[in-house]
Order: sequence, then C-alpha cells, then structure tokens
Amino acid sequence: MTPETAELLLRTGPGTAMGNLMRRYWVPVLLSSEIAAPDCPPVRTQILGEKLLAFRDTQGRAGLVDEFCAHRGASLFLGRNEECGIRCSYHGWKYDITGQCVDLPQVPALAPKMRIKAYPCVERGGVVWAYLGPPEKKPAPPEVEWCLLPESHRYVTKRVQETSYLQAMEGGIDTSHVSWVHRYEVDKDPMHKHSRALDYIKADSNVVFDIEEVAHGLTLYGRRLGDADSHYWRITQWIFPWFTLIPPFGPHALGGHVWVPIDDENCWAWSINWLADRPLPKEELDAMKEGRGIHVKYVPGTFTPLAHKGNNWLIDREAQKNKESFSGVDGFSIQDASLQESMGPIQNHANEHLIPTDKAIVMARRMLERAARDLAQGLEPPALDPAAQRVRAASVLLDRKINAPEWAKTALLDGLKQPVFTL
Amino acid sequence: MTPETAELLLRTGPGTAMGNLMRRYWVPVLLSSEIAAPDCPPVRTQILGEKLLAFRDTQGRAGLVDEFCAHRGASLFLGRNEECGIRCSYHGWKYDITGQCVDLPQVPALAPKMRIKAYPCVERGGVVWAYLGPPEKKPAPPEVEWCLLPESHRYVTKRVQETSYLQAMEGGIDTSHVSWVHRYEVDKDPMHKHSRALDYIKADSNVVFDIEEVAHGLTLYGRRLGDADSHYWRITQWIFPWFTLIPPFGPHALGGHVWVPIDDENCWAWSINWLADRPLPKEELDAMKEGRGIHVKYVPGTFTPLAHKGNNWLIDREAQKNKESFSGVDGFSIQDASLQESMGPIQNHANEHLIPTDKAIVMARRMLERAARDLAQGLEPPALDPAAQRVRAASVLLDRKINAPEWAKTALLDGLKQPVFTL
Amino acid sequence: MTPETAELLLRTGPGTAMGNLMRRYWVPVLLSSEIAAPDCPPVRTQILGEKLLAFRDTQGRAGLVDEFCAHRGASLFLGRNEECGIRCSYHGWKYDITGQCVDLPQVPALAPKMRIKAYPCVERGGVVWAYLGPPEKKPAPPEVEWCLLPESHRYVTKRVQETSYLQAMEGGIDTSHVSWVHRYEVDKDPMHKHSRALDYIKADSNVVFDIEEVAHGLTLYGRRLGDADSHYWRITQWIFPWFTLIPPFGPHALGGHVWVPIDDENCWAWSINWLADRPLPKEELDAMKEGRGIHVKYVPGTFTPLAHKGNNWLIDREAQKNKESFSGVDGFSIQDASLQESMGPIQNHANEHLIPTDKAIVMARRMLERAARDLAQGLEPPALDPAAQRVRAASVLLDRKINAPEWAKTALLDGLKQPVFTL
Repeated sequence: MTPETAELLLRTGPGTAMGNLMRRYWVPVLLSSEIAAPDCPPVRTQILGEKLLAFRDTQGRAGLVDEFCAHRGASLFLGRNEECGIRCSYHGWKYDITGQCVDLPQVPALAPKMRIKAYPCVERGGVVWAYLGPPEKKPAPPEVEWCLLPESHRYVTKRVQETSYLQAMEGGIDTSHVSWVHRYEVDKDPMHKHSRALDYIKADSNVVFDIEEVAHGLTLYGRRLGDADSHYWRITQWIFPWFTLIPPFGPHALGGHVWVPIDDENCWAWSINWLADRPLPKEELDAMKEGRGIHVKYVPGTFTPLAHKGNNWLIDREAQKNKESFSGVDGFSIQDASLQESMGPIQNHANEHLIPTDKAIVMARRMLERAARDLAQGLEPPALDPAAQRVRAASVLLDRKINAPEWAKTALLDGLKQPVFTL
Repeated sequence: MTPETAELLLRTGPGTAMGNLMRRYWVPVLLSSEIAAPDCPPVRTQILGEKLLAFRDTQGRAGLVDEFCAHRGASLFLGRNEECGIRCSYHGWKYDITGQCVDLPQVPALAPKMRIKAYPCVERGGVVWAYLGPPEKKPAPPEVEWCLLPESHRYVTKRVQETSYLQAMEGGIDTSHVSWVHRYEVDKDPMHKHSRALDYIKADSNVVFDIEEVAHGLTLYGRRLGDADSHYWRITQWIFPWFTLIPPFGPHALGGHVWVPIDDENCWAWSINWLADRPLPKEELDAMKEGRGIHVKYVPGTFTPLAHKGNNWLIDREAQKNKESFSGVDGFSIQDASLQESMGPIQNHANEHLIPTDKAIVMARRMLERAARDLAQGLEPPALDPAAQRVRAASVLLDRKINAPEWAKTALLDGLKQPVFTL
Repeated sequence: MTPETAELLLRTGPGTAMGNLMRRYWVPVLLSSEIAAPDCPPVRTQILGEKLLAFRDTQGRAGLVDEFCAHRGASLFLGRNEECGIRCSYHGWKYDITGQCVDLPQVPALAPKMRIKAYPCVERGGVVWAYLGPPEKKPAPPEVEWCLLPESHRYVTKRVQETSYLQAMEGGIDTSHVSWVHRYEVDKDPMHKHSRALDYIKADSNVVFDIEEVAHGLTLYGRRLGDADSHYWRITQWIFPWFTLIPPFGPHALGGHVWVPIDDENCWAWSINWLADRPLPKEELDAMKEGRGIHVKYVPGTFTPLAHKGNNWLIDREAQKNKESFSGVDGFSIQDASLQESMGPIQNHANEHLIPTDKAIVMARRMLERAARDLAQGLEPPALDPAAQRVRAASVLLDRKINAPEWAKTALLDGLKQPVFTL
C-alpha cells in the first residue's frame, strides 16, 4: 500500500474522500439503550471525526445533532432534554431533533433562522443508525440480518478500539489468524462446544482461500479437508463498507461485527450475536452478558474494555505458558484488539509484508479505494441498496467435486430466505 | 470576530500585543497565604505563559522571580528559601527578591553580574500582585474596593479554569446567562435569601441592556420591571482589563471576579466576596469556606475544582431532572466553568452567532483589541490610574422616569465614597 | 552551546550524527534478570529511539529484535517465546535471535527470505549489552571494571530519568554539585561512614579542578587541602561516550553510572556498585537493595522511581527546613534526577550560564561533538578498544609537591592491575 493510498483509506473526517464515501451509508452510532427513554440525559459521541450529541425527545424519537450550541459554542451535553428538544444550559437556546432552533429566548424572531447540524436517524436491531451524507442521496435503512430481528433473537454490544477502523476491520476479514491467537479460545468458549466445525479446523490448518468481489463486498471461501469425500468450507462475508459476518459454529448464535471510525485513530468495534429463527438460548445470552465470546467486560461507566492498551490487555504470562491462551490475553475480541492496538493507532504500512493469505485485505483495500476515488469523480458507490446487505455467512460440508463459489451462486442467493448453512 | 482578532485577543505570552497590554497592569498572582510566612517553601506558578516562582523572604517581602536558575536551568522550586533569598539546590547560587544573584559560591566575583527575571510585588486584599511590564511604566498599586479592606471584610479564592481568560471573562460580563444555568441556584444559595432582587429577576426575565464604555472599562445597565412605578436596575462593572463586579443581592456580601491568563488555554478565575463597611457575617463566611456561592471545593492539594472537565463536572442528571439544578452541575462557578470548558480551551469562534444581548462581550472585545493595537502604536492604554478601579456595582430601584445611566453620572461618581446601592 | 551543537548532541535516533556515533559502542540494554530464564516472557524496551524486544531463547541466549512483526506490524511482546524463537501471536510467524524468520506457516517457502532487525548481544556484569551499529565495525565486548566481576562483587540497577541522556550525564561529570544538593546526604548514607574523605571534603569546599582529555574520555582531578603537608585528590573518570566512575569513599563499594538514551527526552540511568577484590558486604548490599546510596525505590512493576517528576519527587519541606536534606528530596539519585528533570526534558540551553567549574561539561560536549562530526567524515571515534575502559576512579592523599595528573601517568596506568586508590 502506497502512502497515498493509506492516507486516502485512513482519513475519514468531513470533506475527505473516504469520509465522503462512508457518509453515503447508514452508520451505527450508539445503542438504543444509551438513550433509553424519552427526555433521558443526552449522550455525547463521536463518529467519523464529528463530535455529536444524541438524545431521545419527548415523543421517543432519536436525534443526532452537533454537540455544540450555535450561539457561543457550549456543549449541549450540559443541556436539558425536555419538551421535544434539547435546550442549551448557557442561554436557553433550544433545538429539536432536526437541528432547528425552536426557542431563542433573547430574540424569539431569530429562532427560525438558527439551526445546528443534525442527521436523520433510524433505529434497528437495538441500534441508532444515522445518515451523515447529502440528504438527496439517503439510502433506505439497513437490512443486515441481525438488525431485522426481534430483541430476543439478538445481542449487540460495542467497544472502543484504539486503532483506525481499517486496522480493526482487517482483522475481521482476515480469517487466517483464527488458528493462532484464538487457538485455545475456541475450546474454552461455551458458544462453540456443539460445533463439528472445530474438528475440521483443528485437523487441517492449511486453509485455502478463494475470494470473490460481489455486489455487497467480498465473499471469502475458506476450504479445509472434511470427511473422506468432502471439503469443509467456511464462508465469510464482508459487506461494504464495514460489516463482517463470521461463519457459524454449529447451532450456536451467529456472529458479526461493524467497524466504524470514531476518528482516524480510534474506532467503534460493534459485536453482534443472533439467531435467525429463535431466541438466543439463556446459557449463551448469559455468557454474552458476562463479556464472553466476542463481547467484553468494560471499565465501569465506559465502553473501554477492562483489558486495554494502558494495562497491557491484562496479559497473563502463566496462562500463555500453560496454553490456556495463545498470547496470554483473554477473549476473542481482546485477543484481536491487543494485536491490532499493539501496532500503534495507525500501523506503519511501509514495513508491512503481505502474503497470499492477506488477499482479502488487499481486495477490500482496493475496493474501498476505488469506490472513494470513483465517488470523487461522480460515480455512485457499491452496495447502497440495503438488499445487498441481506447475505449470510455459512459453514458447510460439500462433496469434494463441488466448488463452494459455484455452489453459492444458487445456494446463497438472497441469503435471508435460504436455510442457514451451519455445521 | 475575525480569526485575526481572535488571535490577537487570545495570545498573551511575552511579546504578544495582548500580552504587552496586560503587562501594563498589576496582576493578581497568588494568595498571600500560599507563601504564608517568612522563609516558607517557594511556590511555582504560571501567569501570562511565564513560569515563575513566588517566595517570601526572611524580612517577609513577597518575591516573584523566574522559576529557573541562570546557571544550568534547574527549578528554584527545589531551592532553599533562607536568609533573604532563594538558593538553587544544584550548585548553591542564591537570588534575592529583585532577581539579583547574591551568592555564587564557585566564582563569588561573578555574582553581581548575574541575575534572573524578577517582578515587583505588592500585597493587597490577601493577594500578591505583580507588575510584569516595563519598569518605567509601573502604575500605582491596585485600588479595586475589595483589596483596600481589612481581612475580616473580605474572602478571596482562586481556581484553575481550563479555558482562555477571554472565554471565562465573557461569562462574567454576560449577565443574560444568569436566568438560565443559575436559575435554580439563586434560591438554594444562603447568600441570596435576604434580597428583594430575586423577586424582580424572577418576575421579568426580559432584561433590557444599556452598556456604556467608560474610563474604567464598561458599565452594564440591566433594566427589569420593578414595582408599579419603578424599574429595577442591576448595574455590572467591567474594570479594564480583567475585573468584573456583580450587582449586590440585598445585604449580602458583594461579589466580583478577576480573570487572568495562566497560559493561552487556561486561566486563574479569582472569586471575591466582601462588605465595604463591616466584617462578613459568620454564616456567609462559613458558606464561602465550604465552597458555596461563587467559591468552590477543590481537588485536595490543588486549585483545580473538585468538579472539573475530567469528571464531567460531577453532573447529576437526577438533580437536573428534578430542577434542583438547571444543567445538573452544582454551584455558580462550576456552572459557568462547565459551560465555558465544554466549548474547548479556545472556543471555535468561526461557529459563533452573537446576538444583541452579547453586546457587552462585543464591546469588551473591541476595547481590548483597540487598546492592544493602540499600545503597539505607542498610545497609552486605558484605566492605568488605579483611581479608575474605585467603582461599585449597584442594584437599585428607580422611578420609571429616571434612566439609570443618567442617574449614575452623579450617583456613582467616585463609587467608593458613595453609599452601596443594594436591594 | 549553539542551537546547532545542542541539536547534534541531543538527537540520537537512527541516522542522526550522535545516534551513529553511539551505535558504534556496546549499549547496556536491560538487566539480565529481566529475561531471567530460557523461554521466559519477552520484554519491550527502547534504546536510542528504537522500539525493541528482548527475549532469552530456549538455549539461554539473549536476543534483541525489532518489537514488531514483519508481516502486519503486531508487537512481538504479545508473542510466544518457545523452541528457540519468538512467535507472533497474530499469524504465527516465528523469529530466532538473529531476526531470521524460521517459521512462516502460511507460506513456508517464504520464511528464509523474511527477517526482522536484530542486534547482537553479550551479557556481562548482569547486563545484556547490544551492538546497534554496522556489523563490520563491531568492537570487542565491554571491559568496564564492574562488568568483569563475579555477581557477588557487584550490584547493578537502572531507572528511567525524564531528561535527555546529556542532561543526566552532565550531572555525573559535574562533581561540584556534590557540596550542595548532596550536602546532608553523605552523612546519612551507610556507604560513606568509614571514609576519611568526608573530613577533607567538608573542611575545604573550594575544589580546584584539573581536567585532561585522555584516550578513554576525560579524567577529572579535584584538589582539596589535605593534611598539613598534603592535598586530597578526588579523581573522576568519564569513559566515552557514557560511563562515569565516582571516586571511592574509604573501604566502601565503588560506584559508577551509565547514561543511555531511551529517546531524546528520556534516558536510562544505570547505577552500579562493586568491589574489585571481594564480595559486597551484606550491610551495604542490603542498603542497596532497599534503594539507598545511588539506587532508588520504584513504582511497583516499573523502573520509574517512586519519587518522580509527577509527584514532585516526594519533596519533604520539613526535612529541607531541618537540614536533613538540602532540597527536601531524598537519596543521591533522586536529588540529581529531581534537579535535572526540573529543567524540562531538554534544558533551554539558550539561558544557560556556564562557569569555570563547568569545564568538564564543556569538554565532554566538545569531545562528543567532535567525534560525531569526525565520524560523519569517516574518521573513527575514540575509545573503541575496550581496553580503554579499564580505568578506575581514585581518592588519594598526595604530598603537596606532587601534582596528581603527573602522578597518575604512572600510578593509574592500566588501572585494573593497579591497587585501588581509596581514602
């Protein structure tokens, strides 16, 4: 990757090429539960380098506006959320969820002319999504599978990661690392125990990848030896520009992530588990709530993981020595975060040596770069139609004569109507 | 405000236009009690971007010198304060309060030629004031009312605010914010309960301002409806370049502030209460010592408020909901500080939208800018004569036919000889 | 010192003139005990601005390699140290102590072509030393006296100092400060009590210095009045480019330091005590282990002194007042560190006023500058032959007719074969 490409991919603030591209998609911004009730306290957040304030108005509508009052620039975090608007505590200016000033006590006649930045929101899957792009270009709301399900069927968390979104997301696309840092984790995790997949994964670590660029992004086909006459295929989906779907492990909850820039050196790592057709079993849900699986424990009152860069991810050298943990770090997400954060907030790409198993990373970078450059030339980006998000990962045993990419052309068509291929 | 004007107003280090202007006035530097006794430990402080060391010598004189020794640059904070001088602990060089090296043990003959920066000090009102400007331009010592009174009549504290001096001071000039963030505070505060002023303030929130540029700075006349035939006037004083005087609340202690740059992104916010003609009542003094009114509680061992930016000013969303506090933040000074600090250390002035009630802010900015530009052209700045500081704020009920600015021309002349107009 | 000279002396990263010079010498990197056993956890460290990883392989050999994996840049700190190599936890790439990739699981054939930066190490004196320069220029291993002795005869510690190496080292060369900040320390310290040296030092604080540039660096001769017919000489050695040797105090352990850049604003301050011909007495060793003498107590789990800049070096103003401590700071090393850190990480050299007693500092700066400039011109630097390091400090009473520099020409020749001159 050239320095120019790195710069293009990694800068996502207002007015940047990648920032413009990302602003064409609905962005998961915060958990609906963070603004649980009408007129509850407002919440500061940051997305794509923009400091924003989320609140739920008296009618229960989620709003996402500029954090700062148009008057003197005081933070609306200190404001009062009441009577369908957020009122600045400094001089009482009040804004509704569209950013319109609806009360300007000192000069009432000025109110209609005053507004702050505001972004339209929808709530799906327990998440407040916002659209930060040009109003006339707003796509239909997201349709990734987990955000279409009832609350009982899904569990959604987010955590702060101290790296660029790209560095985090590349770990989600790169499935070849599973055999290493997660090696001993899969056996310990209660959400893998009923899966035959582990047997095949352990028996053949020499995965062969076939990666296809598709309408929704990338589909990664990882082939291992199966039974005598079969291959075991793990099919991972990358949905443009930031979703990843993990292949199933038997009957356990499905999993996926979203990787969203906070700013250029930090990102929101969303972790989601779900079942398409039934509520999550209590045992699995309890484990998720305890921060197991792809979820984490937190520093109280924050979305910073309890195990973070500042405390060396609570590395346990005994556990590493005893092969309870490959790196001594505990949990799937912190294992990934620790390695990615250890590279620095933005990896020194000049020293990187990519190999054939990094093909998915290379293809995703190219697809992002091309879309950003195309957009700057007036060409519309891919996967704007949310129907493109209606895909599933899969875990499947196929006859050795069958090639998964061929098989998928019919089997995975409009995934959400298909059976879940799981093993 | 143009970026050029903002830059001019906000840069106060040595050699800047605003720095040169401020250095023409006596600056409150630290509490006399911080260097309580002769030969007590020296104290590091920072004023207008300069790192300084204050100490009280054997004869009880306050000294303010460069923090660093002329020899190798070690901090005199580690030095010994004894026998009329501060002695560097590294090699024993010793300086008196004039900055003169009075002992240079390795080469005694060099001592008379060696000196460090030192500023003349006076002590008034329990405060050490220093003059950082050209020696030949040193004005007579300060004469703001509170610094001329005996200790029993006044109570003086300081706190660190994480903003420019300007952002802090503009809150002191801008009286229109009182109706908002302080709305529920006035009723709770023991230092307002005997004032009729509150009745008028609550009954008419539609204040009309008349602001006059005067010899000492600005006088702000705020008019509200009074009784059937009267207006209730609150008269605030801004004394160039950094003092503000709050209109009285009945018989309670008078109040005021000083806003002094620590550096360009932090300031000292001084809070003073006093009574012109009698000691402060025990009940009020006790409340002040507890950090009530315009005073604060501190992080132990510092002048940082206990409620500060790093802990979200201890915002209490329940208290906000229950209207015990408008913003959820407790206390007059922290209510102001929280809003001003929430803007960032230096507000983004490009996004500011000033309205007519911000007229005092606009006028103060202009007066500061003009004085700084004039000084650069060799014209002397305003209010150098400390007699100009002998003014008072006032709270007065006047016949509707009388216009307060006209009335003040005679009534407030040489304010310190006049009765205190209080309501 | 001109800004150009300061810049040249203070920048030590890869490719800088001073960095190139220092990289021609063996550098003390970490305590052998930090990587105590084969296959123990790896340790991150930083030297001369380079982020490095030290580990001890299965065969017990110390390795010092780039902290980051050649593949994606993950830190090898998270890696597994096993079977003669450090294996990255991300994708399993493995490197031996020469930096050679010995396993690249995804593409085994690529391994021989992949390597990371690695530096040769030797262990002497309980310290892992590395050579960071051009391989063909590697000198023979270090021969400073203390690193040639058995473990029983020496005690070695290191601490982080928040200043440039130069600022720290200049305190080690500048013996004139001993009479000031350490004035009351020598009497308290158990490692000075059997020395007659203290009597002469206290009786005559007017030391006269004679400094000679020699093959190994500088020899400093400090002359005081001795008995009626004698002079008392303290002879300090500076061994190019960063060792200092302290003159003895009677039969007590000898002492010395090494000053090594971590980066340009922090350094490792090594402190060493030793006896040339016998084990350290238990009483002295116990005191060293308690952090007395030139050693320190630590913030648990770090090499940061418990008394550091962030807590004002735990200054005790009572102890200062009562003359238990000159500056109120406790212990030789923290007394030095506090003064040097108080100057800022890099002293403002523009404000410095050097005097004749700073002659050693001036000469060391010139010698370092000359060597760095010469090296850039292709001239070899001084003291590359480790035999040059075989010198000793001395403390000796000589007839007034004898001049120590003359005397030393024969008496200190190949110091390690000579008696230890101690008083």
